[in-house]
Amino acid sequence: MTYTLILLRHGQSDWNEKNFFTGWVDVPLTDLGRTEAVQGGELLAQRGLLPDVLYTSLLRRAIITADLALDVADRLWIPVKRDWRLNERHYGALQGKDKAQTLAEFGEDQFMLWRRSYDTPPPPIADDDQFSQAHDPRYADLGAEMPRTECLKDVLERLMPYWESDISADLRAGKKVLVTAHGNSLRAMVKHLDGISDDDIAGLNIPTGIPLHYELDEDLRPVEPGGTYLDPDAAAEAIQAVANQGRKK
Amino acid sequence: MTYTLILLRHGQSDWNEKNFFTGWVDVPLTDLGRTEAVQGGELLAQRGLLPDVLYTSLLRRAIITADLALDVADRLWIPVKRDWRLNERHYGALQGKDKAQTLAEFGEDQFMLWRRSYDTPPPPIADDDQFSQAHDPRYADLGAEMPRTECLKDVLERLMPYWESDISADLRAGKKVLVTAHGNSLRAMVKHLDGISDDDIAGLNIPTGIPLHYELDEDLRPVEPGGTYLDPDAAAEAIQAVANQGRKK
Repeated sequence: MTYTLILLRHGQSDWNEKNFFTGWVDVPLTDLGRTEAVQGGELLAQRGLLPDVLYTSLLRRAIITADLALDVADRLWIPVKRDWRLNERHYGALQGKDKAQTLAEFGEDQFMLWRRSYDTPPPPIADDDQFSQAHDPRYADLGAEMPRTECLKDVLERLMPYWESDISADLRAGKKVLVTAHGNSLRAMVKHLDGISDDDIAGLNIPTGIPLHYELDEDLRPVEPGGTYLDPDAAAEAIQAVANQGRKK
Repeated sequence: MTYTLILLRHGQSDWNEKNFFTGWVDVPLTDLGRTEAVQGGELLAQRGLLPDVLYTSLLRRAIITADLALDVADRLWIPVKRDWRLNERHYGALQGKDKAQTLAEFGEDQFMLWRRSYDTPPPPIADDDQFSQAHDPRYADLGAEMPRTECLKDVLERLMPYWESDISADLRAGKKVLVTAHGNSLRAMVKHLDGISDDDIAGLNIPTGIPLHYELDEDLRPVEPGGTYLDPDAAAEAIQAVANQGRKK
């Protein structure tokens, strides 16, 4: 008996395109992002990987990606669960800032520490910052758990209780689970699944819009480490492009 | 203490436009239907009627209408519950048939009986009909409850258990509830809310894409009978157009 988990990173967002730090800011998809989402759904349909339940973050770029993909796969009707614990990493005071300007202002060492270090969060965002979510009604029940900044370690720590309580439970009940979320919440999930070290996770990127299929054993461990992208060539190309981007000044 | 219920009929679908009996056939929205959905969401946002929870049927024309409306109102993140009990009336053997051809074939008396009588269902659809949902995975758990045809009375009878168990419970918990559904499932709900007689419900039409707001008292009865359309002029015009359509041959 194995279990089916499908991870899908949202398609390109407005701020991916503009190269701003996004985090919890609720930006829309671009037209390219919508196309990526539809293509992701076509891959699910082609492989017969039809989810029984959908998990999303509370951010529209993940929600709309899921809706576009599931519509194409004729599964828009499946039950949906949304939770802030699947949100993107909160990017603190960097939210809304231009990445290139931030790099120029703070230098490459500091920039890469904020972007890729496992346990160093950016400075916290002020509650009166225009890109703060302190007064967003969707987070009104979070209380002391409401983050003002997060590192990847923080994401993993807020994600795991939900993984245990909800996602694992649906998997063990034999449901095919689709999680449509974000670069860093999915990296945190993959870190847990594949047992990736704190150092090695820095080098792992998940491309947008290409479903990543994990077959999990009885202990919810991957039968094949790293899972399988439904379009492996496109995934490899996208991962290489991100790696090259890191080398650009 | 009053409670807030908002009913929203999906925007124009492909088969509304083509004038086919639709029922449980899962057709998409037209571009006009998508525009209607967005306008519905704008009305919600303008009036500050922001739902806390969404109910939809299992049909994409209702699901996508809700998503488009909630995205505009910045409430795409609210919890979602989908249930077949909110589906459109199952139109039996008429599903997929041209309305004008059906009128010509069976005559106006039979045609109007199928369309508007409270308790006369059309003939049942065969399980091997191309427009049957007998083998649709979304209804696999229904068993003996799976309809092969329905009259409005049947819709009311399958809707009420869900109204009591779920929708009423959320209303009594103080949540603003949005129900995005269909002409006949919403007529059934309005019949219950306003205590409309079996005869009088025949004359009641609900226009597409215009939110209908009910303020409900402690017994979940309307404070104002019939509720309030958020765009009363457009609603009156649409209702008149349907009434005129009924007179065309």
